[in-house]
Formats: sequence, structure tokens, C-alpha cells
Amino acid sequence: MNVIYLDNNATTQVDPEVVQAMLPFYSELYGNPSSMHSFGGGVAAKIREARGNVARLIGATADEIVFTSCGTESDSTAIRAAIESYPSKRHLVTSRVEHAAIKNLFESLSKKGYRTTFVPVDRQGRLDLDYLYENLTDDTAIVSLMWGNNETGVVFPIEEISRRVKERGIVFHTDAVQTVGKIPIDLSRTGVDMLSLSGHKIHAPKGIGALYLRKGTKFAPFMIGGHQEKGRRGGTENTAAIVGLGKAAEMANMHMASGSYTEVGELRDQLENQILAQVPNTFVNGDRASRLPNTTSIAFEYVEGEAILLMLNEHGICASSGSACTSGSLEPSHVLRAMGVPFTAAHGSIRFSLSRYTTRQEIDFVLEKVPPVIARLRQMSPFWKNATLEARG
Amino acid sequence: MNVIYLDNNATTQVDPEVVQAMLPFYSELYGNPSSMHSFGGGVAAKIREARGNVARLIGATADEIVFTSCGTESDSTAIRAAIESYPSKRHLVTSRVEHAAIKNLFESLSKKGYRTTFVPVDRQGRLDLDYLYENLTDDTAIVSLMWGNNETGVVFPIEEISRRVKERGIVFHTDAVQTVGKIPIDLSRTGVDMLSLSGHKIHAPKGIGALYLRKGTKFAPFMIGGHQEKGRRGGTENTAAIVGLGKAAEMANMHMASGSYTEVGELRDQLENQILAQVPNTFVNGDRASRLPNTTSIAFEYVEGEAILLMLNEHGICASSGSACTSGSLEPSHVLRAMGVPFTAAHGSIRFSLSRYTTRQEIDFVLEKVPPVIARLRQMSPFWKNATLEARG
Repeated sequence: MNVIYLDNNATTQVDPEVVQAMLPFYSELYGNPSSMHSFGGGVAAKIREARGNVARLIGATADEIVFTSCGTESDSTAIRAAIESYPSKRHLVTSRVEHAAIKNLFESLSKKGYRTTFVPVDRQGRLDLDYLYENLTDDTAIVSLMWGNNETGVVFPIEEISRRVKERGIVFHTDAVQTVGKIPIDLSRTGVDMLSLSGHKIHAPKGIGALYLRKGTKFAPFMIGGHQEKGRRGGTENTAAIVGLGKAAEMANMHMASGSYTEVGELRDQLENQILAQVPNTFVNGDRASRLPNTTSIAFEYVEGEAILLMLNEHGICASSGSACTSGSLEPSHVLRAMGVPFTAAHGSIRFSLSRYTTRQEIDFVLEKVPPVIARLRQMSPFWKNATLEARG
Repeated sequence: MNVIYLDNNATTQVDPEVVQAMLPFYSELYGNPSSMHSFGGGVAAKIREARGNVARLIGATADEIVFTSCGTESDSTAIRAAIESYPSKRHLVTSRVEHAAIKNLFESLSKKGYRTTFVPVDRQGRLDLDYLYENLTDDTAIVSLMWGNNETGVVFPIEEISRRVKERGIVFHTDAVQTVGKIPIDLSRTGVDMLSLSGHKIHAPKGIGALYLRKGTKFAPFMIGGHQEKGRRGGTENTAAIVGLGKAAEMANMHMASGSYTEVGELRDQLENQILAQVPNTFVNGDRASRLPNTTSIAFEYVEGEAILLMLNEHGICASSGSACTSGSLEPSHVLRAMGVPFTAAHGSIRFSLSRYTTRQEIDFVLEKVPPVIARLRQMSPFWKNATLEARG
């Protein structure tokens, strides 16, 4: 059976060109880039090149890129750097819809005595900006807000927010793991001090990420060890994966320039509009006017999301009921709850996340399968029977 | 020019079988192991198998293995877990000859108000056990001691020490990054609570490590995020590298059983004995009776180590003047200084570290090149002229 992979916000296929770029570092080029001998030194040049490619993808300079092992590490590094750099400040600000890497870290810091503000969102997943700005104080060590939401794709106006936060003299971090490579980012136009990105969301392998660290930003390393990454991240450089991330960044730049994400957005819109047209009691979670082009979260009222996923899976269709990082839990998504999505709809919400590999044929196939799957599940659902009886009065 | 790679304590060649085991996870098996759909689920089974293989290499159970991004992360995770778990205890113990991942972390914690004890070593690099035991107190949160030294190969008696420390009710961690896969380890016979290991020292790729966490050991995650690794390490699982580490662990077990490290030890001894016999004013750093089989640190008096490395490099021979993690620094090795190696010898010390790929022909070639290189450098050295004049009286 063909796999139709619409779970690209969980992880992406590694681009074959990225694999090709990595392979030499698993064979002849295995030297340690920090070694004295020329065998290691040749590897160091390749790391410099990758650093430049990653920087170009986000409008940064190579010196501002610190390689990490994943988005989660970048997030932890950013938050802890601010805390360490401003030890007297005990207030931290984030939103109610962050990824587990920020959400759980903030909850942990909250237990350790930090005062934490979780800025609410409205029914469309839009940030309450007034609430945010009103809650900034001289005691605020850092504001951390995701750029694009992993579940709904809703994009926060980070350029504007980051400038406003900077004007208050407060460090600003953004988790842009889902955003980098999908919409153009030019950090030089923002007030962003630190930004997290992850390789495996942009067709590089798992196990590599990066932290953008604006020149002049106060910093303390999270991973303390050797002098690697100019003392900003200990641990032997993950050469192959760094080179892979560099290649993936180069390709993401190229694909954005050539409009491939416009095409992804068109396919996503087609999928979304057709489902809304063909399946009753269905709506989109999140502000359709400001979203990542590849993501849609669709609420199918009165059906269990897990049941939908299982039946789609039988047709080879991979989607998700929320974040892979919180799967296995029976709790409805904290993102949808924060948006006030009713329980019966949150439980039946499915995220479809596309990539540049997604084809029109695949979307057509999904559109053929989804309506009968939902109809069949609703026939079995007592909630659906009650709802339709009520509607009939 | 052929490369003769005798810098395996810096990093190792990835075994071709390991690369083969990894490749499917860069192509068809790219799913997120935490995803609901069967596409992700198939990957999870491979991770379980790898976990079992790593556990078998050190006499642990699969549940006790937490995958990390590197040895440095494993070290940080262990130390911070103990600190978080015993917040009232403010004393930490380690040795003076640890890798930068522990050394720099302890120095950083020292600045934050923790009382730190750095146990000294003798001229042979052997730990002062009396000093260690005398300094354990009810306030000690953790004792962290490396199993085998990365620069000299000296092996500390961790089985005995860990049991003694455990009898005092103190958490024991060992950085076994250089030891795992080189000498048999059976943790069930020890008092080790936590152990760090790294993939790229045992022919797996860079960017993957593991922490052994004895069942029942109090723990708090260092990398806070998703529920991965049973909540013990957030961040999407680095599937390909985990599978690679599993394969490398399986092969290390096989090679140790078939005696390949006995052969490595014989080659190391041949290299060492012949250099000592052929080159005057030369000695071995570290206790020859208790060392990793693949490592020798040889002091060439009155010569600059960097100059030796450069000339060896011209013959394609890769060695090291100490740890790659501290290269670029002009300071002599803190390990050799802690051992009391005289300045003129510490500066001229070269580490040769072999692997199961090292051949007798390579060692013969190195033995042909080293004596004339040293002789030539000494002819240019004012220190050497003074020393020989003094010797002649």
C-alpha cells in the first residue's frame, strides 16, 4: 500500500540530496572537526558552509548560528540562557498554545519559583496582544512565543511583537521550528534575540537543530563541556547532520524562492475547502487568514479523532490528532482547549500537514476517503445520533 | 596519501554495517516513532531493539537506557538529575582528570555555590582513594568519576569505588565514554547508578549517546519537553542514530568476545615499547598496569607536541596532543598537570589511540616515521640542546 504522508509537522522525509550530502561524513570524512590534524580540519570547513546556509535561511549571519541536537534543546538553551544572564529577574512570559518543549519547561520553572505568565489566545488561536504587553514588567527575564503553531498552523505576528518586547528591553525568543522553511523569515527586520529551529521539520534528519543567537545577546551555555561552537554548546559536533541541515536549509531557500510553498498552500486549501464542503458539522481550527501554508486542523464534530486516524491509516493515510510529542495521552490538545474549541469538536480534530512532496493525486485520494470514513464513524456515534435528533427537534 | 588514523579517542570511523543499518531511516522509514499511525509505529520497534543491544553491552536492562545526543549531554543529565533530586545536598565530588564535559560543569556549579571536591591523582594517574573516601559527607549529592581516561587511558577501579560510594548512600555516576566497548562492563556487579556513553567512540555516528539509569535511581530530566524516552528526555527520537548505536553496540559486544581488543592491546604495546626503545628521553604517561587497551600517551621530552603532530600529519598519521575537546588551547593538558608531569614533558606528550581497524602495517609505518621526526625536532630545540649539554656535564 502506498503511504500518503500528511504528518509533516511531526517529522519530514529526509531529502535524498540531503542524504547524499551527509554520506561522506559516515565514511571517509569521519574526523573530529576539533582535531589538530588536517583530516579533522577538512570537516571543519564543511561545517562553516552549513552554518552559512542556515543563517541565510533566516536572515542571520553565520556567527549567530549555534548547532544543537534538536528544537527542544534550542528552546531549553534559549530560556535558560536568559535566566542565567538575568539572575535577578524572576518573571517569564509565554503563550497557552506552545509546544511541549516550552510548555513543560515553563511549568517546571514555575514549580521552582519563577512567576510565569501564559498569554491566552482567542477562538481563532490569535494571541491576546493587549494581555501580553500589559503583563511585561521590569522583572521579566524573557518572552518566548512560537512563530507558527504546530497543531493549527496559526502564525503569530512575531516581527511586530518582538520589536515591541525589545523596546521594553526584554529578551525575546521564538520557537520557529514549524515556521522556518515554510514562510520567508528575515530576522534583521525583527527584534528576535533567539530563535529555535529543527532539522527534521525541513527534510534534514532528526537529531539536529540550531539556535539563532543575535550578536550581543547575553548568553550562558546549556550544554556545558568542550569549547565547541565557540563555547556555546559542548559536545562533539554532529558533522554529518550539520552538513545535512545546511543542505536542507539551502534547498528550503530555493524551494521557497521558486514558489513551492505557494503550491503547498493551494493543495492544503483544496483539501480543506473540499472537506468542509462535503462533510457536515466540520470546521477549521485556527485563523485561516494567518497560517502556515502546509497545515490544517479540521474539527469533525461528534467523532473520535483516534478512530478517524485508525481508519485513515487503513487507507495508508498518515495524519495526526495533534502533536506527536504529546501522543499517547487521552487528554484533548491543550492548544484547542486554550482556543475554547468545544470538547466534542476538539476530540474529533485532525491535523493534516503537507510538504513539498505532497501531490495533487494524494490530496484527491484523501478527499475520496475522508467523507465516507466520517460518515461511517458518525453512524456508530451516540453523540452524533443525539446531535442530529436535537437538530431535527 | 593513506591516512593512518590513531586518534580514535577523539572519534571513530562509522562501521559500514552501522551505516547500512541507519540508511533506511533516512529514506522510507522516516516516520516519527511517537506518531499514532503504523508508519511511525514500525520505527518504534527498531528503537526497542537498539535499546536492548546497548543494554547488553554494559550488563543493564533495556528500561535503564535513555538515549541522548552525546556523552556531554549524558554527563549533564546525570549531574543535574542528582542535584535536582537531592536539593538540600550541596557537595559534589569528581576527580582532577575528568573530561571537559564534567570538569567545566563542576567548575560552573562551583561558581553557583556548590562545594566541589576534585580528588587528586598520583604521578601514574591513579586516583587517591583515601582522599576520595575521606571527603564523602552526608551533604554529598553525587560522586562522578570517569571509568577510563581519554588522554592517558588510565582505568579507575570503578567497580570497587562505586560499591563503596553506594554503601555511603551517595549517588554514583561514571563517564564511561572511552571505556564502553573497549573493556567488558557488567553494571550488575557494580554500584553505578548512572553511566554516560557515546556512539561516536564505538563506531556509531556522532550526535548520539546514552545514559544508563539504574532502576530506582531518583531522576529529573535535563532536556524537558515531550514525553519521549518515558519522560526522561524530550525531543524527537533520533531514530537513525539510535539504530546505528544499537548496531555498533551489538558489534562491539561481538568484537570484544572474539578478542579483537586483545589484538588492539598488542598493537598498542608494540607501538609503545618500540618508541620507548628507539627514542631517548621518552616515557609513558599513566599507569601501564591499568589502562584501556587502545590508548597510549607518550611524553617526548624537550619537543613541542604541536610540532610533532604537524610532522606526523605530513606522513598521513593522525594523532593528538590531548583531548580534541580542548584543542586550540595552548595550555598543557590539565590531566598531565594533575599527574605532575613536568612542563617540558607535558608539552611534548602525544596520544595515540587505536581501534579494531588499526593494522600491524600501520603501526610499523608509524614506528618507521616517529624516531626521525623526534630527532629532527630535537635538533631544532634549544631546550634539548641545554638538556643534552647538562647531561654531558
